[in-house]
Amino acid sequence: MSAPRRGFSSDNAATIHPEVLAAIAAVNRGHAFGYGHDDYTRSVEARFAREFGDGTRTFFVFNGTGANVLSLRAACRPWEAAICADTAHLNVDEGGAPEAIAGVKLLCASGQVHDGKLTPALVAPLIARVGDEHAVQPRVVSISQSTELGTVYSVPEIRALADLAHGHGLLLHMDGARLANAAAALDLTLREVTVDAGVDLLSFGGTKNGLLFGEAVVVFDPALAEGMEYLRKQSLQLASKMRFLAAQFDALLSDGLWLRGARQANAMAARLASALRDLPGVQITRPVQANTVFATLPAAARDALLQRFDFYSWDEAAGEVRWMCSWDTTEEDVEAFVTALRDCLAPVEA
Amino acid sequence: MSAPRRGFSSDNAATIHPEVLAAIAAVNRGHAFGYGHDDYTRSVEARFAREFGDGTRTFFVFNGTGANVLSLRAACRPWEAAICADTAHLNVDEGGAPEAIAGVKLLCASGQVHDGKLTPALVAPLIARVGDEHAVQPRVVSISQSTELGTVYSVPEIRALADLAHGHGLLLHMDGARLANAAAALDLTLREVTVDAGVDLLSFGGTKNGLLFGEAVVVFDPALAEGMEYLRKQSLQLASKMRFLAAQFDALLSDGLWLRGARQANAMAARLASALRDLPGVQITRPVQANTVFATLPAAARDALLQRFDFYSWDEAAGEVRWMCSWDTTEEDVEAFVTALRDCLAPVEA
Amino acid sequence: MSAPRRGFSSDNAATIHPEVLAAIAAVNRGHAFGYGHDDYTRSVEARFAREFGDGTRTFFVFNGTGANVLSLRAACRPWEAAICADTAHLNVDEGGAPEAIAGVKLLCASGQVHDGKLTPALVAPLIARVGDEHAVQPRVVSISQSTELGTVYSVPEIRALADLAHGHGLLLHMDGARLANAAAALDLTLREVTVDAGVDLLSFGGTKNGLLFGEAVVVFDPALAEGMEYLRKQSLQLASKMRFLAAQFDALLSDGLWLRGARQANAMAARLASALRDLPGVQITRPVQANTVFATLPAAARDALLQRFDFYSWDEAAGEVRWMCSWDTTEEDVEAFVTALRDCLAPVEA
Amino acid sequence: MSAPRRGFSSDNAATIHPEVLAAIAAVNRGHAFGYGHDDYTRSVEARFAREFGDGTRTFFVFNGTGANVLSLRAACRPWEAAICADTAHLNVDEGGAPEAIAGVKLLCASGQVHDGKLTPALVAPLIARVGDEHAVQPRVVSISQSTELGTVYSVPEIRALADLAHGHGLLLHMDGARLANAAAALDLTLREVTVDAGVDLLSFGGTKNGLLFGEAVVVFDPALAEGMEYLRKQSLQLASKMRFLAAQFDALLSDGLWLRGARQANAMAARLASALRDLPGVQITRPVQANTVFATLPAAARDALLQRFDFYSWDEAAGEVRWMCSWDTTEEDVEAFVTALRDCLAPVEA
Repeated sequence: MSAPRRGFSSDNAATIHPEVLAAIAAVNRGHAFGYGHDDYTRSVEARFAREFGDGTRTFFVFNGTGANVLSLRAACRPWEAAICADTAHLNVDEGGAPEAIAGVKLLCASGQVHDGKLTPALVAPLIARVGDEHAVQPRVVSISQSTELGTVYSVPEIRALADLAHGHGLLLHMDGARLANAAAALDLTLREVTVDAGVDLLSFGGTKNGLLFGEAVVVFDPALAEGMEYLRKQSLQLASKMRFLAAQFDALLSDGLWLRGARQANAMAARLASALRDLPGVQITRPVQANTVFATLPAAARDALLQRFDFYSWDEAAGEVRWMCSWDTTEEDVEAFVTALRDCLAPVEA
Repeated sequence: MSAPRRGFSSDNAATIHPEVLAAIAAVNRGHAFGYGHDDYTRSVEARFAREFGDGTRTFFVFNGTGANVLSLRAACRPWEAAICADTAHLNVDEGGAPEAIAGVKLLCASGQVHDGKLTPALVAPLIARVGDEHAVQPRVVSISQSTELGTVYSVPEIRALADLAHGHGLLLHMDGARLANAAAALDLTLREVTVDAGVDLLSFGGTKNGLLFGEAVVVFDPALAEGMEYLRKQSLQLASKMRFLAAQFDALLSDGLWLRGARQANAMAARLASALRDLPGVQITRPVQANTVFATLPAAARDALLQRFDFYSWDEAAGEVRWMCSWDTTEEDVEAFVTALRDCLAPVEA
Repeated sequence: MSAPRRGFSSDNAATIHPEVLAAIAAVNRGHAFGYGHDDYTRSVEARFAREFGDGTRTFFVFNGTGANVLSLRAACRPWEAAICADTAHLNVDEGGAPEAIAGVKLLCASGQVHDGKLTPALVAPLIARVGDEHAVQPRVVSISQSTELGTVYSVPEIRALADLAHGHGLLLHMDGARLANAAAALDLTLREVTVDAGVDLLSFGGTKNGLLFGEAVVVFDPALAEGMEYLRKQSLQLASKMRFLAAQFDALLSDGLWLRGARQANAMAARLASALRDLPGVQITRPVQANTVFATLPAAARDALLQRFDFYSWDEAAGEVRWMCSWDTTEEDVEAFVTALRDCLAPVEA
Repeated sequence: MSAPRRGFSSDNAATIHPEVLAAIAAVNRGHAFGYGHDDYTRSVEARFAREFGDGTRTFFVFNGTGANVLSLRAACRPWEAAICADTAHLNVDEGGAPEAIAGVKLLCASGQVHDGKLTPALVAPLIARVGDEHAVQPRVVSISQSTELGTVYSVPEIRALADLAHGHGLLLHMDGARLANAAAALDLTLREVTVDAGVDLLSFGGTKNGLLFGEAVVVFDPALAEGMEYLRKQSLQLASKMRFLAAQFDALLSDGLWLRGARQANAMAARLASALRDLPGVQITRPVQANTVFATLPAAARDALLQRFDFYSWDEAAGEVRWMCSWDTTEEDVEAFVTALRDCLAPVEA
């Protein structure tokens, strides 16, 4: 294995939270029916219903692409489409799965320039050509919370999109791969930023917040959940040893683990952003609202820094990079990183 | 969680092997690039190449359906089809994923009556209508090793199918969800029962042999692996925290863990079968060659036994049941089960 | 163009009926909105509703594969399957389109040996594993009328299948590429052999009965027709100059053209079968109930005859051939064919 | 049938050219093997090879959506994508078929503002993330000739796009639903504006230029045509009575019919555009280069005119309409239309 190395490439480069591993180990005794047909998995599903409200149906899946594609397959009939931001993971990072696997066309809006968020004004023009057989029919609006640009929708912003969607008979889907970070940033419960804000269908992320693997499709309207067991299986997302997937989510909902992890990641991003404000040559380019910092810096400094820390070059042409904090990022990590960055900037500035 | 209960329902009802959990914990330090782009995952992939031969390419995926569907997508162009036994998991237990997700039609042969195996004589008639645009074109023969009926293909049997397939320009795929059990039964290496026997493309199972989750698509011809990274991602099978998937396979290949687990499961099935031979009213219905015992017994005895142990009724009409042993099945489990079975049979016999 | 040659290969080798061409020419004046949004097309759709009953919705499409695939897409959600005979066109002659385009798995029953028909006894075992997420869920039973083996379902036979299907919440689809031949054989109206017998969804054939091209998906329950406009367009089956497709069906329903054509084809098959009964070495192998004759004859005679007339070798191994009559087959054609056949048999017999 | 009415809604609202109907009638004698396996169809395919160059393979299909989807399926593997203009028919008017049927994601560029054309500068940024498994891999650039905005790519413009595509290992596809209009506008042969300009794969339109129905996928590189027979069948585009489809294309290539029709349509559009220049309140909004005129006019005038002539409101908000001429548009039609338009404008102007 590679030497222990801490970086800022992604929250999925992070470790498994010890409480999650412990939860897996705790249920690792005796035999249990596979595929979720065991009492323990049912109890964790019931826990989701307590967290998100009666009638909530929860379907654990393997990964985020799986959660999003399953959500699209559940929401859309063959001629129906999803509206999303052009920067959405759904559009740019799912390897064409929405189209090739779900058969769903995406109708993309350019999100707002700096925060990448959809607004009713951006979505409304895409709810068009209803009843025209030559055009796909919009069925669901999908937003990422937090967004791929590290920004967070407020509840009124979500509500406004939900109202627009519902007013046209559409659904609101939330890609919550980093929902915990958003809820932590807003200081609200998971329920308040989702179903209470008008979300119908949620991809709830666990992997990026300390799980070994695992996401959940959470459906707030039972009617929408019809056939989901079949769809999950057919979509290659039905885990046989389900109890170990359920256990991870059980841990995530226990003792505020989701919130602790998210708050730490967010705090470290804020700390990093704060430290950057003193550094000449570095410009923060997006609002730092969750666990991600986008910034520009001189190419030479960037390249030198990449020798010491992992992170992504986001927009090569613009010299923009992405630094992401995770649940296990420490103050020491941020200090070491800023120190290294300062070193790398020095020759440039000189 | 349900009380510790031991049963014979499936090898995916079993626990995670402690060595597997330990391997996960061992790599749970520091940050690592996601999606397999880390040195450790690459080292485990390289280990597969040592195990199966140079040029082998290994793609870790989440589950067996994913491995099989990815294999079909890699092997078949849109107009090409897979030949399999009508009892194959691919045909009866993938929720229609081969058709709905891979778009691949299955051409099914009735396997041999008692062992469910394909033979050249059964496959040859399905390699038909080549060049006829109205018919799908056969591209791959898929066999399960061990089979869904608990039987094991010998190397000459595999070789005969490989020769037939290759002679017609087709590939041989092996659904090896229980490959370890088969190799253990044959007392051969993984390589001897796959690539050396003519297999081109392998779904290599881990979940049923002590992993938390995880299968691998193993491709023996590098040309066949072209585009697999894209296909795996698009097929919803790309794990972000890949090192923890790799670690499980690393453990499985270490110190013969795969073989130890498989031998134990097989030995327990043999022990169970042996004990059954003394029981009036119970008839073993298939050759017991790996870790599964199929048998008929009186319905009343079956129903009574189901109150005490989990297992599947395989063929309700025929009164046939399936009892499956796993890596963690113990001699005590078998004893307790046989004792209970004898109890349940008693009133019937009386 | 090839010299005028008459054969017995298929009813789609036949010509366009002059009344059909005349109907096309008759509407070939002025401009009309495309895609069926013209008054004339609507009037022909309304004519179908008069023919088949109120509430009938008709969707003209290009060809039989299109009609069948559109029917499957309308009937089935992604996890649902169609039950059909293994000899069904759907299963063996659609190039894998049901699977690759509709994403629908076919659950095949071996039809009855001599007539290829499904019966409730054959279908019932396939309505299985309802509620089991690992298995596709049966949704529609599809029968061909007349069958690929030239046989005709009686109304009670259809009704029995409809009752079985409806009793399990399934639909009955009829692949009526040769519906006219069946109705003519039964001396019943189109309505009597379809909706009145319990059919829910019909692929109504035109091409094989004198049209230039064109089939219609006829839906008897308006609820089933929801979204069909979108599905037809998306399934590549929406003709832009729709009036010329509608005109052909208008002609087909006028002055009993469908019945005249079908009766002629059937009568010629009967005449041919009758003549064959005198010929030593020729054995009719299936009931001759519509416009097709299956027979065995010596290979040498078959090969000699193929030099003079087009027809298909149906089962090479069994020496079985298919001779198909069409709306434009004449008594002279049959005479000439029988004479030639007698010539070809002579050296064999001698 | 609706009363003969002439309009400007679309070139698919037009009639069948008498020479096309005559060609159908001419081959309507004798029997011919279906599905294109007849000598006559082969001769027309050979005629395409003479028109477009040796090695050209031609596949007749039913409609434009079918031609485009078949082209995408031929060009792209599952993880590959097509680049097109956001205004392309492929993107906005195929009912989601590229995604749902071909499984291909479209990467859209905003075409140039006034003419909707792609340029290398617009396409190049979309040839991105090559080798990144999270992103679809660009495989084909698709342009419409003439465009949906009535404009025409010059040969150097096509060549520049072809060079860019080929330089990156991509193909150039041309959606030539109105190729004839473009070639006529450029005064070049069909070959000069396609294969000689670097096009690899062509959807060649017939329906909009006087055919009853029918398009052709024309493939200039035989290697690209591999498997096309299977794909055409599976894509629901294989006509059984193929000779009647071939006959229409035979007519289209005879005596310059394609050119006569296209020139007439283009000339009528030019005449209309010329007449409009005198009309106050009417502004032509796009270059009139083929058979379409886009213009703005007062809403009241538009609505009044719609009572008398069919045409499409293109951009309701902008007050922009589309007037399309076809092969059968006459000078009298244009005169009558302009007179009516003048009438409708009068009260507005007053």
